[in-house]
Amino acid sequence: MKIAIYGYGNLGRGVEAAMKYHTDCELCAVFTRRDPASVTTAGAPVYSADDILSFKDKIDVLILCGGSATDLPKMTHTLAEHFNVVDSYDTHATIPEHFERVNAAAEKSGHIAMISGGWDPGLFSIARLYASSVLPEGKDYTFWGRGVSQGHSDAIRRIEGVLDARQYTVPVEAALEQVRAGENPQLTTRQKHTRQCYVVAAEGADLDRIRKDIVTMPNYFADYDTTVYFITQEELDRDHKGLPHGGTVFRTGVTGDGTRQRIEYTLELGSNPEFTASVLIACARAAYKMAKAGQSGAKTIFDIPPVMYSSKPAEELRKTLL
Amino acid sequence: MKIAIYGYGNLGRGVEAAMKYHTDCELCAVFTRRDPASVTTAGAPVYSADDILSFKDKIDVLILCGGSATDLPKMTHTLAEHFNVVDSYDTHATIPEHFERVNAAAEKSGHIAMISGGWDPGLFSIARLYASSVLPEGKDYTFWGRGVSQGHSDAIRRIEGVLDARQYTVPVEAALEQVRAGENPQLTTRQKHTRQCYVVAAEGADLDRIRKDIVTMPNYFADYDTTVYFITQEELDRDHKGLPHGGTVFRTGVTGDGTRQRIEYTLELGSNPEFTASVLIACARAAYKMAKAGQSGAKTIFDIPPVMYSSKPAEELRKTLL
Repeated sequence: MKIAIYGYGNLGRGVEAAMKYHTDCELCAVFTRRDPASVTTAGAPVYSADDILSFKDKIDVLILCGGSATDLPKMTHTLAEHFNVVDSYDTHATIPEHFERVNAAAEKSGHIAMISGGWDPGLFSIARLYASSVLPEGKDYTFWGRGVSQGHSDAIRRIEGVLDARQYTVPVEAALEQVRAGENPQLTTRQKHTRQCYVVAAEGADLDRIRKDIVTMPNYFADYDTTVYFITQEELDRDHKGLPHGGTVFRTGVTGDGTRQRIEYTLELGSNPEFTASVLIACARAAYKMAKAGQSGAKTIFDIPPVMYSSKPAEELRKTLL
Repeated sequence: MKIAIYGYGNLGRGVEAAMKYHTDCELCAVFTRRDPASVTTAGAPVYSADDILSFKDKIDVLILCGGSATDLPKMTHTLAEHFNVVDSYDTHATIPEHFERVNAAAEKSGHIAMISGGWDPGLFSIARLYASSVLPEGKDYTFWGRGVSQGHSDAIRRIEGVLDARQYTVPVEAALEQVRAGENPQLTTRQKHTRQCYVVAAEGADLDRIRKDIVTMPNYFADYDTTVYFITQEELDRDHKGLPHGGTVFRTGVTGDGTRQRIEYTLELGSNPEFTASVLIACARAAYKMAKAGQSGAKTIFDIPPVMYSSKPAEELRKTLL
């Protein structure tokens, strides 16, 4: 299966790094919108995004590694006119319109476009779907972290006087325990997660003002208990270089005469982009199989039989994993 | 969707009890191989298993609630000649031959036969498949319990001088911690689980001999650290009446240059038969949808898109759960 990467940031690098473990896949190209000469990969050949149409017959699946805010809403449906594509579109509120736009293009061109691969949306979404189908009477909870939120880190970096920042989303242990105990609590935003900010300030900057700008920032921090730690650039580079993440999806439900049942799905990720990249490769494998079977259109992780993600034949999976 | 239950033990009763939460399903009959007059349900009409063929056009899916040891190897393929069926065949080693036998019958008759629904095989199997597809470089662990093993409880009851017994399978906390810490331990059977036996002995029975008979029993107990507690029938009825179970599937893997990633799927079940029954109802829904779409043959949980288990339309699921 011939894979290409479109967009070479954290996620694109993650796909390249994960590829060595997926031995049925061959990475044949990285496409960038920057000057290809300025991009150094771990080995994959780099081409300009402008040249992509000349690769139409050389790529089985194109993994789109752009961002959800501005890249993918333009990128996925456009490229689905020419390629089987996989993306990690993660703006939950606008997934339906993204799906419709991409589906129209992919159905027309006869390609498969798998959208919203990753872990949330993605593996967390399937955990929610299986659990709610089995336990219709119940309550869902999703907790994220402890992990780095790149969006929140970026928001802090835009504050005047801030040189660098890392923001961790942290689930509240007491809330996790209440859910595990089957108490079905009603939890506010503030009761579910706290936010920890590690901030490098410019020399002479007003630290109190920066702290206030952070903790009162609407949408990002105002609804949370937020703690700000000022550290040096050296400390940030030494202690906060990674991009760990994860979280837990719960469903607590009842069967029979109120018998309690709990389903819990947890990810603890050493690297968020590397893990997301690994999910996208499995999705690319599924897209390839669906395309070979003559299917087309937009698909999500809800539409795809689990067997499609594996490099192994169904007989072997029934024998070894069922 | 019209459902019928074939076999009315713990699992059959669980299906009837779970049905009230699955409001898109109607339970229209319970079939029993006993005298129907001797079977009291919670409300569903009871018929003799001998009369089942007269219900051919009145049932969308038949949920088979027989045991894996002797019932299902004869039952599933025979009934798949006339009905869409779902079973919970759980003898892992012989799933491939069960699949082939059932597939031949179901393909010939044009019905759907979904085998091995439940949680292990079942939800645990899918957790293993998704995880190994995403993280090809890694290690799987499955722990069961704390929960009642009915097979082990039965084995104790067959010992001379034993009136009643309840056996709990208990995961070893230290082993769980090693796995969570990413140590990828090689664990023996003894290191993964212990067994706790609550035994009611006949008056005057030789307790030391019973204890020895239990802890040395090959396959069931000899490879485990087993503790035997002698209690009264009243204590057993009061403290050990339920059938709780559960467990955890782990995959610990690496991406990139050895970055650690962990996936963990846990069930904590107040009632094993009621939960298994709830999974079987979701499987029946999927079987019904597949049959309506013109598909036939044997299917496992690996073959079925998650969207099929839900009573809700795909558009709504993309909007609310993705």
